[in-house]
Amino acid sequence: MKTISSKNNTYIKFIRSLHNKKGRDQSRKFYIEGIHQVGEALSNNFPLESIIYSPGLLKSSFGKSITENGHKKGVEIIQVTPEVFKSISLKEGPQGISAVGIQKWVDLSSLAKLDGVWIAIENIQDPGNLGSILRSLDGINGKGIILLGDSTDPYHPTAVRASTGTIFRILVVRSDVKDIDIWRSTNGAIFIGTICETAKSYRHVEYPENMVLFMGSEQKGLSKEARNLCDELVTIHMSGSIDSLNLACAASIVLFEIHDQKVKND
Amino acid sequence: MKTISSKNNTYIKFIRSLHNKKGRDQSRKFYIEGIHQVGEALSNNFPLESIIYSPGLLKSSFGKSITENGHKKGVEIIQVTPEVFKSISLKEGPQGISAVGIQKWVDLSSLAKLDGVWIAIENIQDPGNLGSILRSLDGINGKGIILLGDSTDPYHPTAVRASTGTIFRILVVRSDVKDIDIWRSTNGAIFIGTICETAKSYRHVEYPENMVLFMGSEQKGLSKEARNLCDELVTIHMSGSIDSLNLACAASIVLFEIHDQKVKND
Repeated sequence: MKTISSKNNTYIKFIRSLHNKKGRDQSRKFYIEGIHQVGEALSNNFPLESIIYSPGLLKSSFGKSITENGHKKGVEIIQVTPEVFKSISLKEGPQGISAVGIQKWVDLSSLAKLDGVWIAIENIQDPGNLGSILRSLDGINGKGIILLGDSTDPYHPTAVRASTGTIFRILVVRSDVKDIDIWRSTNGAIFIGTICETAKSYRHVEYPENMVLFMGSEQKGLSKEARNLCDELVTIHMSGSIDSLNLACAASIVLFEIHDQKVKND
Repeated sequence: MKTISSKNNTYIKFIRSLHNKKGRDQSRKFYIEGIHQVGEALSNNFPLESIIYSPGLLKSSFGKSITENGHKKGVEIIQVTPEVFKSISLKEGPQGISAVGIQKWVDLSSLAKLDGVWIAIENIQDPGNLGSILRSLDGINGKGIILLGDSTDPYHPTAVRASTGTIFRILVVRSDVKDIDIWRSTNGAIFIGTICETAKSYRHVEYPENMVLFMGSEQKGLSKEARNLCDELVTIHMSGSIDSLNLACAASIVLFEIHDQKVKND
């Protein structure tokens, strides 16, 4: 196998372009880094264009087995020098393995029936929050996320990292309030919205099996239009001096209430 | 009032040094930015050394009233040019107001009796997580945080920002497992630990009024030594494919269970 030793190689430059929104939007691909992330993508049969590794950096035998596994699955394997790898890496101590993934977007209209717990978030700004929400949603075996409005990119490297591999399992939909309203009219999904203002406690609602939890953005909360879609509005009552929580924390609190009402483990 | 117009002014250079751990550790001071943050520090009577503002950037009348309020409270007010302000700012569109705060650390041995809900976190690495945990802790009217081991700095600008002003109210203690064990022997606090492994569900424990919730680091969870201190170990049961949540999300889920067991709002 040929080893790429130039940072100016066309494909290496393309990989670096995936660190930015423009590069991701144009190619509909994204950057995945590290043994855990690349391993999770492979084990979930997530579509990968290539796996890039540097034998000089990749010491773990598990890491090496990932490249073999990827090769068996037909993913192109690209060998690079440590210097080239560092030019694409976003980590301080890179493990020497990355991948280029192909973005997967589910079309809302293709979802004839809503199954399980979904979350819809309006205008979420922080990719770290988005990744943490995907992680919590997977923790309750949730099905998918619907990004409404001007949301951050779930394929942003920070979102991918914070999702700890759950981005490769959770269905991702991009939509808006108008389209989701039309979609609902044919499938009768239950929408529950979370707001910061006075409302019923999120603890005092019986959640259905199939539902969408609506959350607003970090700055502005849920819009009037989105609230109007909701069958019920809930809030997290607080006792301190603040009036809102971090968005990923708030989403997790409500998601685990939905989950724990159904599952009674001990 | 004289306006500082040089980015190389000694005090301006000192403020920039507060962006880094070394500068904060040496001076025991820290950097606060934005109208909301500086306003919260003042309204909580948090000790401030100075407020720095740039009339060319600070357009909001509320922002201007903060400088007047600070002046009345005896805080030194420093006027700078927009260019100098931008040299200290960590924001993309700076509002033109910052402050230098004096770090407040509570000595564990000064706490004779434990009051309310506290959280103890071992080796937390991410300042954003730490700030979000302070925010959730304030949301349940919690009292303080105990940082065990090699934890990130609560006065890191990212932690201060993510705390949305709660760093100015929550008591902050630095300690270790050995000292907290000695301290507990004289005040009988109840310690409850959160782990990822098999344990009783966090939903099936009756939490006392006064307690410390122990959480481990993002990477390693709670150490054996810390687990041995705990009166009870709990876990968040999950149904998906991951085995752990984001640390701030996990802490928030358990903190609001503790809170909501006591407060029955609707």
